Amino acid sequence: MKLPESLDNLIEQFEKLPGIGPKSAARLTFHLLAKPDEEVEQFGRAVSDLKKKLKYCSICFNISESEPCEICSDSQRNQSIICVVEEPLDIISLAKTGYDGLYHVLGGAISPMNGIGPEHLNIESLISRIGKNGDKIEEVILATDPSLEGEASAMYVLQQINKLQEQQSKLKKIKITRIARGLPVGGDLEYADEMTLSRALEGRKEY
Amino acid sequence: MKLPESLDNLIEQFEKLPGIGPKSAARLTFHLLAKPDEEVEQFGRAVSDLKKKLKYCSICFNISESEPCEICSDSQRNQSIICVVEEPLDIISLAKTGYDGLYHVLGGAISPMNGIGPEHLNIESLISRIGKNGDKIEEVILATDPSLEGEASAMYVLQQINKLQEQQSKLKKIKITRIARGLPVGGDLEYADEMTLSRALEGRKEY
Repeated sequence: MKLPESLDNLIEQFEKLPGIGPKSAARLTFHLLAKPDEEVEQFGRAVSDLKKKLKYCSICFNISESEPCEICSDSQRNQSIICVVEEPLDIISLAKTGYDGLYHVLGGAISPMNGIGPEHLNIESLISRIGKNGDKIEEVILATDPSLEGEASAMYVLQQINKLQEQQSKLKKIKITRIARGLPVGGDLEYADEMTLSRALEGRKEY
Repeated sequence: MKLPESLDNLIEQFEKLPGIGPKSAARLTFHLLAKPDEEVEQFGRAVSDLKKKLKYCSICFNISESEPCEICSDSQRNQSIICVVEEPLDIISLAKTGYDGLYHVLGGAISPMNGIGPEHLNIESLISRIGKNGDKIEEVILATDPSLEGEASAMYVLQQINKLQEQQSKLKKIKITRIARGLPVGGDLEYADEMTLSRALEGRKEY
């Protein structure tokens, strides 16, 4: 049976989302179909508007409506600590633990298999950020995923910071820590519950 | 942490969909965020356009871009058999079995708990449809869900068709059938509930 085009269209769009198969996609589409026009229109607008007002913060590369982002421009936050994460989504999880320092979003993880090298990530900007704020920064927490790629990225960032410290001998010694692997290895940071994540922050160890 | 409004907005919209919790909603939103503007715009448009071109077929109440729908206006189909279903989505599943008769969409199932009575469903229209096409229709398959509500709806439709046949004594005797309830193919007998197993035994067929 050929479905009406607009139905087929939306089912196809839903199928592109992660974790949504053909059956779920059809279910979601028919669910919307049964909703009032206004609700469906609201949803459509929310999708269309998503990227219109958003930009990446030039300091930490988090997603934001302002420049610099809310976190970077919040002087109440602890300016002496930077938490390095892979994705903006990770910040939401970490924010729930009560962490009140700054962030730096790498925009992914090093993954040679997918052709992603250090040069594709916001690592250079992190190093120069640390170099410029060397008097303020006391600790860098490496909170990349506890996966192969995440570990590799953490190691690479560690090396780069060490190199920076060798070059700028006047730089205050920065503590570099890695979140504890209380997180299930091979897991994904964004799925961790708040407690596990809090423990992981508490149990961080110096390299 | 306060999220940018447009992000919050879309997460909220995703959360309204069935089977999508707060974490999944955030994940889907950030997934879209990482996509090119054009792709996101396409998705938004697909949602917004969903209901603009669609209407309910005045004969079978399926969703369609034309009036009557593609199925009702397809003379190649077997016109002597009507399959009664709860939702338009059910038609997609049935179409895959190779069934080539007509359909009638009730638009739900009788559910007094949710305040849905027979008068809220497309049952009257089904009865008058059968009354008008009595010379053509040979069988009505009741394919509502094998749930409490679905069974109640099937029983009600059965009674109404019987009543119609009593009133219109000239009407050809119509066969009324109910889809078989039994073990799902590929299922495991030991996990089947008692009701299903009872139905499977009742419906047993000789080789």
